[in-house]
Amino acid sequence: MSKAYLLQESDLLPLSLGAAFLGTGGGGNPYIGMLRTRELIHKGAKVEVLPLEALPSGACIGSVGGIGAPVVGAEKIKEGAECLRALRAVEEAAGVKVAALISAEIGGANAMEPIVTAARAGLPIVDGDGMGRAFPELQMSTYFIYGLEPSPGAIADDKGNVVVFKTMVDMYWLERFARHVAVDMGAGAGFATTPMPADFVKRVAVPNTVTQALTIGRTILDARAKRLDVVSHLLATTGATLLFAGKVMDVRRELKGGFAVGEAKLAGFDAHAGATGRIAIQNENLVLWVDDVPVAMVPDLIMNVEIDTGQPITTEVLRYGQRLAVLGLRAHDLMTSATALEVVGPKAFGYPELDYRPLPFLAAPIV
Amino acid sequence: MSKAYLLQESDLLPLSLGAAFLGTGGGGNPYIGMLRTRELIHKGAKVEVLPLEALPSGACIGSVGGIGAPVVGAEKIKEGAECLRALRAVEEAAGVKVAALISAEIGGANAMEPIVTAARAGLPIVDGDGMGRAFPELQMSTYFIYGLEPSPGAIADDKGNVVVFKTMVDMYWLERFARHVAVDMGAGAGFATTPMPADFVKRVAVPNTVTQALTIGRTILDARAKRLDVVSHLLATTGATLLFAGKVMDVRRELKGGFAVGEAKLAGFDAHAGATGRIAIQNENLVLWVDDVPVAMVPDLIMNVEIDTGQPITTEVLRYGQRLAVLGLRAHDLMTSATALEVVGPKAFGYPELDYRPLPFLAAPIV
Repeated sequence: MSKAYLLQESDLLPLSLGAAFLGTGGGGNPYIGMLRTRELIHKGAKVEVLPLEALPSGACIGSVGGIGAPVVGAEKIKEGAECLRALRAVEEAAGVKVAALISAEIGGANAMEPIVTAARAGLPIVDGDGMGRAFPELQMSTYFIYGLEPSPGAIADDKGNVVVFKTMVDMYWLERFARHVAVDMGAGAGFATTPMPADFVKRVAVPNTVTQALTIGRTILDARAKRLDVVSHLLATTGATLLFAGKVMDVRRELKGGFAVGEAKLAGFDAHAGATGRIAIQNENLVLWVDDVPVAMVPDLIMNVEIDTGQPITTEVLRYGQRLAVLGLRAHDLMTSATALEVVGPKAFGYPELDYRPLPFLAAPIV
Repeated sequence: MSKAYLLQESDLLPLSLGAAFLGTGGGGNPYIGMLRTRELIHKGAKVEVLPLEALPSGACIGSVGGIGAPVVGAEKIKEGAECLRALRAVEEAAGVKVAALISAEIGGANAMEPIVTAARAGLPIVDGDGMGRAFPELQMSTYFIYGLEPSPGAIADDKGNVVVFKTMVDMYWLERFARHVAVDMGAGAGFATTPMPADFVKRVAVPNTVTQALTIGRTILDARAKRLDVVSHLLATTGATLLFAGKVMDVRRELKGGFAVGEAKLAGFDAHAGATGRIAIQNENLVLWVDDVPVAMVPDLIMNVEIDTGQPITTEVLRYGQRLAVLGLRAHDLMTSATALEVVGPKAFGYPELDYRPLPFLAAPIV
């Protein structure tokens, strides 16, 4: 059984690095959130990390995160209390106070947002999240997949505007309204979903992902410090598969309705010399094809790291000439149930021809 | 001093006709709202019309209306309780109960929405409104021009979704968020603004406009019934000026971000034979030029009526071949102060070259 622990200032860099890795190319860059958290912890804020088992029955758990386009998040710096204002609005609308915060997505910037908010509010955070990765839309978390009510939710911007989604027919309406309000808010805002009962969170959250991100980040930093091969250490620590090694030849990327949508093409080297990799992007890496054969797909995790440094490369900084290792990691069982695949499987992302096939299946490609 | 009176079933057709007239081409067609109100009153609902003087000090007055594109409102029939749900949400957010309802715009469909809602809620309505006409945006009412807080506001759709604009930095943010949420809601939704103190309403509402609409509608119907010239009777009753008489030669109209935007061209006849009229449209008629000389402009009212029947022609049903009388009516002083012109003057609508000049100025055209 995992234990509660206090986040240390020195944990934050590896945590943000691991979160970027689990972002599977998206989720926004956690670096700025890391700096904001470090500042708060440096000034004395204490943030405890609670394992799922430690959540008291009957308590309410809040979930907050940034909402918008990662490519904007990289330059539009948050005012800092967006998520806290959204949290307060949703607490008021639901008539409860939350006892701890949990991330909806451990991948990317939203690994840090609950920590920033927890540090400001004096709350602990939960060692887990709603995706075990990053995904572009609100309804793509285990919370909503497994039945969380869509309302009330709340969104807040850096200027002081707060909008409450008081009664929502379903998650798709919430996502639609929230996404468009977020675009109006400058494509970067703080979001709070309806507070959840602790027992529900224990049942549906992907467990231990804060610690997982921390471990991944430490592995990368340790291997770098010892001048070891980062990628092989990552494979060993995480259980990931090396899906492809290649150089970025072309990136097509545009901002569409608040999403970064596009495709990257890679020319293989080493064991993959002569082969072509192609990655579909919607904020995150969705599908990897090698020579037009799909070899990994959502909800499994597809991660690009710089082959020499293990640095996670998010889709907004992908560019010609980068030498990448493309790693694959099987998603948590909570994300691959039939119910979950309806929301986060390849068909849900617009690939009707792809039946989800879990990693690893490189040895026997689908043709 | 005007008196309180109960709306009769037989008042509703003239009221809706007068509201369409005061809609200055926009505000949506009040006909469907009239049918809904008639149904409710027919079933026994009582709606009292209170003059501004009769509002009790200390009471709160609610304002509700439809929000969206008129061209959609003509076909997308409301579920019926959208405005009531928005009203209840805004009452809850503000922690008050309203004692009466007032329209934000007497022109068009929003003359009827507060009456439908009042009939459902068992509330009286106020004889007045926030524009004395119709305008395309929320901030263009005297309520907001003269300092009403932008939040809380609420919007509700026909499906059950309710969004609360809990804290808004200013009216422009409210308008922006509400407009986009309204578009997501299918470009037709119910909106409630923050409840207003009765003393504020007494000071800033354009007075007696429900009765004015009723009188205009009765004038049109009476003149038709007696086979008299409707337009000359309208001019006599309302104090309006005949600005132009012409046949519609061309209409350009498109749906842009929830607004119907465009222009109509008229070929003059009778006293205006040989002249060309041109009307700029943004939901409402904004400016009339005759032979490229501006002869009437917002916030003054520019109304197109069918020359033979006096039927108000809204911009969404303007079409080639219609024979129109274009009437002008001077706006209420509350809409033409320097403060108001910043929001509803010609410059605010994108005509920097036009300085507001009140009607009538036909005798001395600006060149």
